[in-house]
Amino acid sequence: MAKSTFEYVKNFEQDDTLLPNSWIVVRLDGKCFHKFSEDHNFTKPNDARGLKLMNYSAYAVLSEFNDLLMAYGQSDEYSFIFKKNSTLYKRRAAKLLTTINSKFTSSYVFYWNKFFDEEPLKYPPAFDGRIVLYPSEENLIDYMKWRQADVHINNLYNTTFWTLVLQGNLSPAQAEKRLCGTVSADKNEILFKEFNINYNNEPEMFKKGTLLLRKTLSNEALNKSISVIVDVHSDMLKDTFWKEHSNLLTKTKQYLNYEGPVTDILNEQIVSKAKIAQEQIEISV
Amino acid sequence: MAKSTFEYVKNFEQDDTLLPNSWIVVRLDGKCFHKFSEDHNFTKPNDARGLKLMNYSAYAVLSEFNDLLMAYGQSDEYSFIFKKNSTLYKRRAAKLLTTINSKFTSSYVFYWNKFFDEEPLKYPPAFDGRIVLYPSEENLIDYMKWRQADVHINNLYNTTFWTLVLQGNLSPAQAEKRLCGTVSADKNEILFKEFNINYNNEPEMFKKGTLLLRKTLSNEALNKSISVIVDVHSDMLKDTFWKEHSNLLTKTKQYLNYEGPVTDILNEQIVSKAKIAQEQIEISV
Amino acid sequence: MAKSTFEYVKNFEQDDTLLPNSWIVVRLDGKCFHKFSEDHNFTKPNDARGLKLMNYSAYAVLSEFNDLLMAYGQSDEYSFIFKKNSTLYKRRAAKLLTTINSKFTSSYVFYWNKFFDEEPLKYPPAFDGRIVLYPSEENLIDYMKWRQADVHINNLYNTTFWTLVLQGNLSPAQAEKRLCGTVSADKNEILFKEFNINYNNEPEMFKKGTLLLRKTLSNEALNKSISVIVDVHSDMLKDTFWKEHSNLLTKTKQYLNYEGPVTDILNEQIVSKAKIAQEQIEISV
Amino acid sequence: MAKSTFEYVKNFEQDDTLLPNSWIVVRLDGKCFHKFSEDHNFTKPNDARGLKLMNYSAYAVLSEFNDLLMAYGQSDEYSFIFKKNSTLYKRRAAKLLTTINSKFTSSYVFYWNKFFDEEPLKYPPAFDGRIVLYPSEENLIDYMKWRQADVHINNLYNTTFWTLVLQGNLSPAQAEKRLCGTVSADKNEILFKEFNINYNNEPEMFKKGTLLLRKTLSNEALNKSISVIVDVHSDMLKDTFWKEHSNLLTKTKQYLNYEGPVTDILNEQIVSKAKIAQEQIEISV
Repeated sequence: MAKSTFEYVKNFEQDDTLLPNSWIVVRLDGKCFHKFSEDHNFTKPNDARGLKLMNYSAYAVLSEFNDLLMAYGQSDEYSFIFKKNSTLYKRRAAKLLTTINSKFTSSYVFYWNKFFDEEPLKYPPAFDGRIVLYPSEENLIDYMKWRQADVHINNLYNTTFWTLVLQGNLSPAQAEKRLCGTVSADKNEILFKEFNINYNNEPEMFKKGTLLLRKTLSNEALNKSISVIVDVHSDMLKDTFWKEHSNLLTKTKQYLNYEGPVTDILNEQIVSKAKIAQEQIEISV
Repeated sequence: MAKSTFEYVKNFEQDDTLLPNSWIVVRLDGKCFHKFSEDHNFTKPNDARGLKLMNYSAYAVLSEFNDLLMAYGQSDEYSFIFKKNSTLYKRRAAKLLTTINSKFTSSYVFYWNKFFDEEPLKYPPAFDGRIVLYPSEENLIDYMKWRQADVHINNLYNTTFWTLVLQGNLSPAQAEKRLCGTVSADKNEILFKEFNINYNNEPEMFKKGTLLLRKTLSNEALNKSISVIVDVHSDMLKDTFWKEHSNLLTKTKQYLNYEGPVTDILNEQIVSKAKIAQEQIEISV
Repeated sequence: MAKSTFEYVKNFEQDDTLLPNSWIVVRLDGKCFHKFSEDHNFTKPNDARGLKLMNYSAYAVLSEFNDLLMAYGQSDEYSFIFKKNSTLYKRRAAKLLTTINSKFTSSYVFYWNKFFDEEPLKYPPAFDGRIVLYPSEENLIDYMKWRQADVHINNLYNTTFWTLVLQGNLSPAQAEKRLCGTVSADKNEILFKEFNINYNNEPEMFKKGTLLLRKTLSNEALNKSISVIVDVHSDMLKDTFWKEHSNLLTKTKQYLNYEGPVTDILNEQIVSKAKIAQEQIEISV
Repeated sequence: MAKSTFEYVKNFEQDDTLLPNSWIVVRLDGKCFHKFSEDHNFTKPNDARGLKLMNYSAYAVLSEFNDLLMAYGQSDEYSFIFKKNSTLYKRRAAKLLTTINSKFTSSYVFYWNKFFDEEPLKYPPAFDGRIVLYPSEENLIDYMKWRQADVHINNLYNTTFWTLVLQGNLSPAQAEKRLCGTVSADKNEILFKEFNINYNNEPEMFKKGTLLLRKTLSNEALNKSISVIVDVHSDMLKDTFWKEHSNLLTKTKQYLNYEGPVTDILNEQIVSKAKIAQEQIEISV
């Protein structure tokens, strides 16, 4: 039973410490989500319930790991950005990757009913993940732009494709053929001329994906400023965004004021902090 | 919007292909499960519901990945063993690791109610994971023995500790002090003389952990042999086990007959296959 | 001047410890040796002086590192095989790789004049190197066969090519065209019918490359057995070789008797050991 | 003989591509140079011949690889800095590391006689090497400062130690004891008060190490500016150095004018370029 006789096998574990002073990005992707979304009757081309569940799961992750600067999600993927000097788990790649991946996955299952109340989860879904390092701010910004350019391209295509199928009565094959070789302008025109749809009026969450940021909120009810995670759909492809958020990539504690709408995610935090504040008042009385 | 301008960032992803011809082990561990088990009123020192949920989640993983030879679990950890020539996901480490980790995690949440019917899950749990390579059969067997020696040592300690606390009315600190410096024989004696507990009669699942193996089952109802995953509590520290299972580490398709009890996990497979067989009969009629 | 202020940069060095219990192969290749061999008037297609210098440099490396089981060289490349449980330099990849590479390179320059007495070295040559792990004996044997099959294929081609050019008065382009699409039998026939050359009679060092092995030599002059490194041109593609050398891949200390010819490399060791023995006799008298 | 049967072993080579957009540092260290320097009667504590040979070997490396921004050497070590966007050898770590290591080593042996004319090289020396990435300019500058702070600390110690031994007739053990616990000021005082040595007057090469940089030289004889590699002993611990050389870490082609002394290394380049220019004039006439 001598454990020590076998303990040598622990030496086969290899050190996977990540290079210091570089931004760590963890990106998760749904495994076989094409099938999963069909099995669960996701609305085409975008299912707001599914996207909100993704956002809420990412919010659960961000709430737990203070070293995460932000997160960005679209479709069935989510990226999490650690501050460049994070020493969480001594920067061990597998530990960081699996912890984020697991927490996100379990949140997705745990909160399913919050968003899909009449659509029961049929089987456990899975997400795979990867971990990438970016040594410069420019590289990281380009990463964020890359993912957002991706959602733009895909969403315009998907919106047009599914409009052709669902409203235009084309078969998927016909719709695919119709769109073959078209550029963005062509797709905008099809939507507008044939279906009277102005793509610009589509929901921001569909067109831009969702960015989770740490900001400060002046709250009247609480009579003070509180640190919150906000879910926004900003255009990261515009340089103005990066100018306004110049310290986004360096500070986990953000003093940037948030002045946007009170989203569900934000409201939950306000209510929670108000409740805690109230309890403290009661205790102190 | 040119996606291609930013696509260069994809080149920062690093190749993590694992060495060929070596056994790949993925080991998952519950994150902060000490607190998690308290928050969910786990029985001390072992909660059969919790262990069965772990086993069932691992069974869900094994059912999905044919390249997995077996799995072994104890306490809040589970190890999955890929066959040494697996080319699943081109042997990319992060992909293998996160997919197993995510599927296990989501199964744990998804099947929670199956085992904890009166104990609602309060928040999403997380598991971290690591991936290790073993180049020789001897190394891999020693890995399995290492994990099983670990459960033996820990379980005897925990059983004695909690008996002292729950039945002996010692405080945790007193129990810890009492056990300080004791060897296995001492603990067996405390259990037997003071509490009339014969450690040998403790449930095998507690003492040995659970091994998931692929075997063949002769089923009378079906009138044929079927491939199944069985959950057993074999003693891998004995050489006889490895002699009887000589091709366990090389073949994913096992022709070893299973002749043990029909466990819940096994029963589920028999019922499922019987149902499929019945449907096929009905279709062919 | 506080060194400690800057010492943090040491943390950017990454652990490159190699997986235990696997054979470590270091393979070196001459950098731009096509040009180097022309600049130094190497005989075509094989220059015995150049090959002997390669062998001697490899012998210098093998003499210094006891954890090396053997080495195999052909053309401008040399492979060094560490025993699978070597812990030299804690199995750090860069350290092992560069030390072997550097020692080989400096030996090549240092011993140049020993083999090229009338051909001065014009500039410092360079070798690049790589490090590869093989988890099983079969993989390692196949590695050795791969390198030797390579020398066979290349040398038959080169011998025929240069015979066509040097004796057949074809231009290199004409010779290349002539050989395009030919198989081994064709080349053998060209050599035999057109130039009366029996390829089988070509020097073994050209056809088989050189293998450096550790063996035991019964030496009459010394009146005892001595451990030596021998340079042989065995056929590793034949299974008989591996049967006769069954412990070659596991033992650094070889008790296999050597009964081949006394090569220069071997003679040097005999003379050296005889000299040491003589000195010891003189001291003890 | 089918090579393809064995070629699968090539798949065991693992990708070692380095993260893009980061400075690659290759640092070489003499292996057992304590013994090597004794065996070759190096002057203590510094041997100008040995240091010049190191510098000249590094100069040979820098001349060959245009992607190297600079190199810095002291004692028996040398660091080579690649520009951060270098794609040489596709950034493969082992290839970069061994090529630099091998070229440096062979130069060291090849040019030995140029510096040690009356001291024959007794055996081939070896250097080991490592490769490190630095993601930011600050990290890289701190690396350079780290190495230079190291030479300062060591050289002051060694100078005092060897003065005590060679001029003060202390045994090495006595000298070591004498210096135990002393700070810089103490050592300076020992040198000055006891031996009338002003440490500030020691050669710059001993106190500062040698930096190889690419600069532009206005040459009257050639009547034009030429790109040269200069060997200087600048103080990199001073911020003024980095201000004056602000583009040192980003540009391989430097337009900074060099106005220092004509060193041997520099003179060799001027003579060589003058010779080439003269030949071109003769050809064109």
